[in-house]
Amino acid sequence: KRIVLLPGDGIGKEVMNSAKEVLSAIAEEFNHTFSFETHEIGGAAIDQHGTPLPDSTVDACKQADAVLLGAVGGPKWDQNPSHLRPERGLLGIRKALDLYANLRPIKGFKNLLHASPLKEEVISGSDLLIVRELTGGLYFGTPSERRENGQVVVDTLAYTRHEIERIVEKAFQAAQGRSGRLASVDKANVLESSKLWREIVEEKKAQYPDVEVEHVLVDAAAMKLITNPKHFDVIVTENMFGDILSDEASVLTGSLGMLPSASLNESGVGLYEPVHGSAPDIAGKGIANPLAMILSAALMLRYSFQLNDEAKLIEDAVQAILDSGFHTADLKVANGRKVGTEEMTRLVVDHIK
Amino acid sequence: KRIVLLPGDGIGKEVMNSAKEVLSAIAEEFNHTFSFETHEIGGAAIDQHGTPLPDSTVDACKQADAVLLGAVGGPKWDQNPSHLRPERGLLGIRKALDLYANLRPIKGFKNLLHASPLKEEVISGSDLLIVRELTGGLYFGTPSERRENGQVVVDTLAYTRHEIERIVEKAFQAAQGRSGRLASVDKANVLESSKLWREIVEEKKAQYPDVEVEHVLVDAAAMKLITNPKHFDVIVTENMFGDILSDEASVLTGSLGMLPSASLNESGVGLYEPVHGSAPDIAGKGIANPLAMILSAALMLRYSFQLNDEAKLIEDAVQAILDSGFHTADLKVANGRKVGTEEMTRLVVDHIK
Ligand SMILES: CC(C)[C@H](C(=O)O)[C@@H](O)C(=O)O
Ligand SMILES: CC(C)[C@H](C(=O)O)[C@@H](O)C(=O)O
Repeated sequence: KRIVLLPGDGIGKEVMNSAKEVLSAIAEEFNHTFSFETHEIGGAAIDQHGTPLPDSTVDACKQADAVLLGAVGGPKWDQNPSHLRPERGLLGIRKALDLYANLRPIKGFKNLLHASPLKEEVISGSDLLIVRELTGGLYFGTPSERRENGQVVVDTLAYTRHEIERIVEKAFQAAQGRSGRLASVDKANVLESSKLWREIVEEKKAQYPDVEVEHVLVDAAAMKLITNPKHFDVIVTENMFGDILSDEASVLTGSLGMLPSASLNESGVGLYEPVHGSAPDIAGKGIANPLAMILSAALMLRYSFQLNDEAKLIEDAVQAILDSGFHTADLKVANGRKVGTEEMTRLVVDHIK
Repeated sequence: KRIVLLPGDGIGKEVMNSAKEVLSAIAEEFNHTFSFETHEIGGAAIDQHGTPLPDSTVDACKQADAVLLGAVGGPKWDQNPSHLRPERGLLGIRKALDLYANLRPIKGFKNLLHASPLKEEVISGSDLLIVRELTGGLYFGTPSERRENGQVVVDTLAYTRHEIERIVEKAFQAAQGRSGRLASVDKANVLESSKLWREIVEEKKAQYPDVEVEHVLVDAAAMKLITNPKHFDVIVTENMFGDILSDEASVLTGSLGMLPSASLNESGVGLYEPVHGSAPDIAGKGIANPLAMILSAALMLRYSFQLNDEAKLIEDAVQAILDSGFHTADLKVANGRKVGTEEMTRLVVDHIK
């Protein structure tokens, strides 16, 4: 299996090392062969190649079986013109690989829930998956331009029927493998695109009789995520709504540093990355939490390589380590023991071996 | 002062009576003359006039000094085609009166905060105002249509420079009258409209040297509202982001039934309505909480009529009544006394007299 590593910027580099070590341990234990190839993206690519997404990176990713991404961005590039900003690399690779389905599982770890901004009775027991459309909508629609001498500006929220169908199907399938409840989030009382979205969900549901479907308006969903996160199993929504709701959901459990994500295309190639950013303030200090990156590698094993036992072993290792009280600086555990990036990684590796 | 009352549907009718009684008490105490005229909107208008927004309603509102709206919507009209749905009346009146600035103050009541989904230390002390652009963006942009035989769908996020300037100015002014902090929320790393928005905020800020400005991406704002609501004073954002974030923010304090809103145009005419909906499940039972509607009437006195003392008296009355333990069924107060809509209204009126 060819795995392309895109460490990116800030703590991205440190946590990527951790993921590589963990994957090497898995390869050894289970007799797999993983080959790793590292390429630049984001700020690092701007510095070395003058562009946030060099062709060499795109080519390597296209030939890979899966891609791991650390994080992009940092103050160094914040004042750059928009085509020279790190996040352009991220948007570019999503489009280049047609990674239309962004999957974000959000589940609290019992001994970290006390750090949640929500009351324990509100958050405990919640376990949801946000399925966000990632290559359409306002992010890529044209025209996106100024007109009449800058007096008017337009962006375009565009979808093809096919784009909506494939993400909706993905979400139905995900719901089948979970608790069988799907909330489709739209703004059908205002947007024509949402009306088509809702129609397509209604069309598809006959094929998934075991899935219970509801339509929720995006504003109502933003409320319900806070008042009753347990209400949700799988949420499916378009790109911009998904950006907002998945970030909203990511802080509910109080441990953003633990959340992985997967972005998949139709041929099963995926890009896996932690939900957290490049955290320039703590970069290079050896204290970054590598667990979201390691759990992203586990998602890669499951979704791109169908290596479920291997994925489960990593997830169990992480749970066991937290249960023994080990934690990084971003997590607070009563009577726990604080460790750095390397030691946390070694703990995971030791548990696997 | 001519006030048009649009009770609308569900509990809208009940809480509108309450607001009228309270305003009559204010008129008597302070020697003002308020004239009231009632018109239909939403489902009630569909039933009586065959349209959610009859011309007679629009005309009356145009001649009024201010408009009070209850709530629209209900299961009876949920299956209607979109031009015959109650919320079309709401969108229509906003556009007809050019109500571009939606103001939503969100502040918890000390003795109700225990009902918040957030931990007390996270929510207590928060006091924010969301200024949402209400007549532009994806809500009204064209084209909004299907193409190529329904294979493609587009909506348009359009703004003129003038539309952005006036809402940004409104927000700067609001910040001056509060703690002097303004968070402008956009998605400038993706949208051209957000880039123009950010430029305009930067242009305007020289005129408001006493206001401290920051730019926050909408996804980051959705997180921060939950993890640290105290961070914000005034938030200004475009229509759809404002719809999502203001609903998200409205559940933070745990008492949605207490939140008023104001929607203003350039000539100061405003439409005032509670944030909560028509609550068809409890309509007609006499148990609806009239306080958000009553507080909306207070906002009307302040923003449209500059009657600050009168507005303050209503707000103090509501606070005093809650402090004495009285509450409606939607609120929970330890050792309190539960009262219905009419009794709650009488308590407010008695306090004013
Ligand atoms: C960096 C930004 C363009 C990106 C997005 O909006 O998609 C990020 O917020 C994300 O969710 O991965
Ligand atoms: C009913 C709906 C069209 C409306 C909106 O989206 O503006 C509502 O959610 C609101 O916020 O007042």
